[in-house]
Amino acid sequence: MNLQNSINLYHHLNGLSRSRVPSPLKDIVKYMNEPGMISLAGGLPHPSAFPYSAMQLQIYSPEADVATVSSKSSALLDISVGKYPSLHHPNNLSTALQYSVSTGSKSLSAFLYNFVQRVLRPAYSDFEVLLHFGNTDAWNKVVNLLCEPGDYILVEEYTYPSAQAVWAPMGCCGVPIPLDKDGILPEALERVLSDWEQVHPGVRRPHLLYVVPTGQNPTGSTLPLERKKEIYSICVKYDVIICEDDPYYFLQMPDYVPPSERDSEGIAKSERVTDDSLVDKLVPTFVSLDYQGRVIRLDTFSKTMGPGHRLGYFVCNPLFSERLLRASEVTTQAPGGWSQAIIEEHLTAWKHEGLLRWFNNLRNIYTIRRDWLCDLIFSVFDVRPSSDGIADDYIVFPKGYGSDQDTGKRHMFSFNAPKGGMFLWIKLNLTSNSNYRTLKASGEGDPEGTLETKIWMEMIQEKILLAPGSYHTPIIGPNERMKQEEGVAFFRLSFSFETREDMETGVKRMAKVFERSWGVGAYEDGQKSCACLIRNRL
Amino acid sequence: MNLQNSINLYHHLNGLSRSRVPSPLKDIVKYMNEPGMISLAGGLPHPSAFPYSAMQLQIYSPEADVATVSSKSSALLDISVGKYPSLHHPNNLSTALQYSVSTGSKSLSAFLYNFVQRVLRPAYSDFEVLLHFGNTDAWNKVVNLLCEPGDYILVEEYTYPSAQAVWAPMGCCGVPIPLDKDGILPEALERVLSDWEQVHPGVRRPHLLYVVPTGQNPTGSTLPLERKKEIYSICVKYDVIICEDDPYYFLQMPDYVPPSERDSEGIAKSERVTDDSLVDKLVPTFVSLDYQGRVIRLDTFSKTMGPGHRLGYFVCNPLFSERLLRASEVTTQAPGGWSQAIIEEHLTAWKHEGLLRWFNNLRNIYTIRRDWLCDLIFSVFDVRPSSDGIADDYIVFPKGYGSDQDTGKRHMFSFNAPKGGMFLWIKLNLTSNSNYRTLKASGEGDPEGTLETKIWMEMIQEKILLAPGSYHTPIIGPNERMKQEEGVAFFRLSFSFETREDMETGVKRMAKVFERSWGVGAYEDGQKSCACLIRNRL
Repeated sequence: MNLQNSINLYHHLNGLSRSRVPSPLKDIVKYMNEPGMISLAGGLPHPSAFPYSAMQLQIYSPEADVATVSSKSSALLDISVGKYPSLHHPNNLSTALQYSVSTGSKSLSAFLYNFVQRVLRPAYSDFEVLLHFGNTDAWNKVVNLLCEPGDYILVEEYTYPSAQAVWAPMGCCGVPIPLDKDGILPEALERVLSDWEQVHPGVRRPHLLYVVPTGQNPTGSTLPLERKKEIYSICVKYDVIICEDDPYYFLQMPDYVPPSERDSEGIAKSERVTDDSLVDKLVPTFVSLDYQGRVIRLDTFSKTMGPGHRLGYFVCNPLFSERLLRASEVTTQAPGGWSQAIIEEHLTAWKHEGLLRWFNNLRNIYTIRRDWLCDLIFSVFDVRPSSDGIADDYIVFPKGYGSDQDTGKRHMFSFNAPKGGMFLWIKLNLTSNSNYRTLKASGEGDPEGTLETKIWMEMIQEKILLAPGSYHTPIIGPNERMKQEEGVAFFRLSFSFETREDMETGVKRMAKVFERSWGVGAYEDGQKSCACLIRNRL
Repeated sequence: MNLQNSINLYHHLNGLSRSRVPSPLKDIVKYMNEPGMISLAGGLPHPSAFPYSAMQLQIYSPEADVATVSSKSSALLDISVGKYPSLHHPNNLSTALQYSVSTGSKSLSAFLYNFVQRVLRPAYSDFEVLLHFGNTDAWNKVVNLLCEPGDYILVEEYTYPSAQAVWAPMGCCGVPIPLDKDGILPEALERVLSDWEQVHPGVRRPHLLYVVPTGQNPTGSTLPLERKKEIYSICVKYDVIICEDDPYYFLQMPDYVPPSERDSEGIAKSERVTDDSLVDKLVPTFVSLDYQGRVIRLDTFSKTMGPGHRLGYFVCNPLFSERLLRASEVTTQAPGGWSQAIIEEHLTAWKHEGLLRWFNNLRNIYTIRRDWLCDLIFSVFDVRPSSDGIADDYIVFPKGYGSDQDTGKRHMFSFNAPKGGMFLWIKLNLTSNSNYRTLKASGEGDPEGTLETKIWMEMIQEKILLAPGSYHTPIIGPNERMKQEEGVAFFRLSFSFETREDMETGVKRMAKVFERSWGVGAYEDGQKSCACLIRNRL
């Protein structure tokens, strides 16, 4: 396929980024490696002053069943990095621990470039891969590349709080784009952009969309290909840069199915994939649609190798890559030498195939965990497929109330089984909660927020901690957050970390707090409440 | 000693820094560790998904003679970090590679706090130690903590280019403070501040001084205690924050003495110190004078353990530390897990004593290297102690010309033997160079710069690379650099990296270029030049 080069997007750079100049020291670096050159120009500490001699690491064989692997297991691979390079082992500590150009290891970058080309498939020819310190660092660098103080930034209606905490102190404002279980709604995005001049006369139209396309944090939604295409076209039409923050890309999962349709290891029978076919199971990336180079993709090893690496990479056009590099030179420099040396050694041992097998392995781990949580909700509550007019797949009732004719009365919350990531997002139907009606009748200004906090605090008393939905509402102005929809509240549940047993205890505790707040089950009336107390004492 | 708390310096924070708010996720972290709490609130990847089982590392015993240590040497210490913690070994990979609060490892921070208290000795009680990614990251964070676009920043007359490249694109300007071999001149600093309103009416007076007190880059100067005291007082008087960027603090050296006064290992006989007495040999830090908390000290492991760690720490007041932490949360997060785990394991094995012994070891390594370079200048050129009116210690003449009566005519450059760091700074006396006089007579706008570049390019042809002095001149306005002193040019020579042999070849090549440019030695006249050519052919 004959791909075109990226188009010129210089006009998107902010003033800071345009003003950065290459370090004059670059000239020195240029001459330093000339044959026969003796350099007294650098400022490199002598590697004899790095007090390390060699490192060995036992890594999982990519075939390892990670749920059971232990240090005693034979499914381990030994890798090691010596202090100095050898012909057959160029990776070495005296280089890894030395200053380097801020692009970092050439061979690691080359490995990733090839992997990106094969798996993520950018649709233009001159894309570049640039190492960074993980997606938090990367997003900060993107904001400082493109945004001026006071800019408006297009964000998902529920978004990651720390991602906002970068631009909010700069006086930027979020423009929330509504979401459903398949991510942001293209028509809503288009409406915001087409109406911009009318709604915000004289204000610069947003030119940056921040989106987490896979297993979105907090809603767990994953954008299907068709929506990605529509969103990309809209961004071309309105000249918007897309920042594709995609830490969960390789944690895409098959649809949730009941236990009976899974194999003995808990994976949907129809969905077990070979390592080779994994790539075809993944929704194509925004960069794979990006024939202009207007997507800045953020990838990270945080979810796949461990966040402590502080290592990831940008995929973007050469202009942005060069400006990001200029910023890195004077802020973070190249990512940590240990992380680079270890990941490089590790990927050299695993190769593309091992890495894909590992991702498939991870997909299975997190699918099993997602299913634990969904199964628990099915068993602790009554769950019914949603009726018309409700966007979520499942409506949840207190146990024993799912067959009520008057479903609206007992409809407690709704949810979707996520197809990626680590989060399940529940939407509380507060209109069925009498505490909410009382608050509302009393003229309380923010009854949704008040009740959310009350329920959250009661859960903490019951020793179950969830992330309140309101933490994720966009900041739309100085000290101003988007007003949440009337009559609903949200909580985010993570299925990535706790054991199956703790998850069960947690969901039961959550159910107890909900039932008490909704006044159902044991809490239906005074007598039942009393019965419950007595039962608890026994 | 009863130390006071730091004073309130809130008014120094810039708008960005004042606007930062703690992440709402902090509330979640607060409850997460309550006993019995089940948390589905986090977003932590499961440690079984970190494909590492254990790490082993061979580190130098701090007693090791680093010049000769090899992987076969017995002077190595084995350290290891397992995947999961044990009672006697809390440091572990599943924590190191996990997300953490942005303060990083508590035990590593505690070790460093105690070390700082014992060795660097802040003069106020509520100082804090906060990890960062090395001094480039740290300085970037300081600029973004304190500086508004357009601010003036007090800098040394010759300063590190990358340090300027952070604030220059923000539209900030440097205010150069003259230096001599003992660092910046307090009276010059006071003059700039006292005359500010008069010279820059209506412009905010600089409130940040950036200073490299030890082995300054590029000049190699080290501030003596008395000057530090004067500078600190001036900063109190004019309410200036001092950013003490001190990567070479532990690379302080004894005075340069001739080879005959050194012991068999090359250390000045009078100056070999025990590990315990090393601390007393070091010039006390700015923080040790800082009874108000107005110094932000930047320390790094780059020069002592390897730059690739990307690990260092701030010492500063709690207000600044908290704001720096808020910035880290949304930009870099905590330093890399491998670096933290390794340095922690390493320092736990070495203890304070081992670390001080290692620093003493490094002091010896770099002293020997400093002496190599100085000895070479003494042997390749004629060197005489400077006469009155020349600030530098040594005046250098072409070989064979040092005893001329008319010293000015052949005075080629002058220098000081540095007492710290990695750099030797030479000051070319262009007035004795006929090319300079010709350039000047021709009306050339910047004859110093033109000749510096010409000499630099000629050195590159001779395969010797130095860092041109002009790279280090302060940026004093948009696209405007400080004008250099008339009739001089500078080059920076590093003695940290090359072998003794390459250093010798390099200094000889430099001498050849100088002699040719100055028209002395073999280049004195046509005949000698010719003789030289013939000699080269033979």
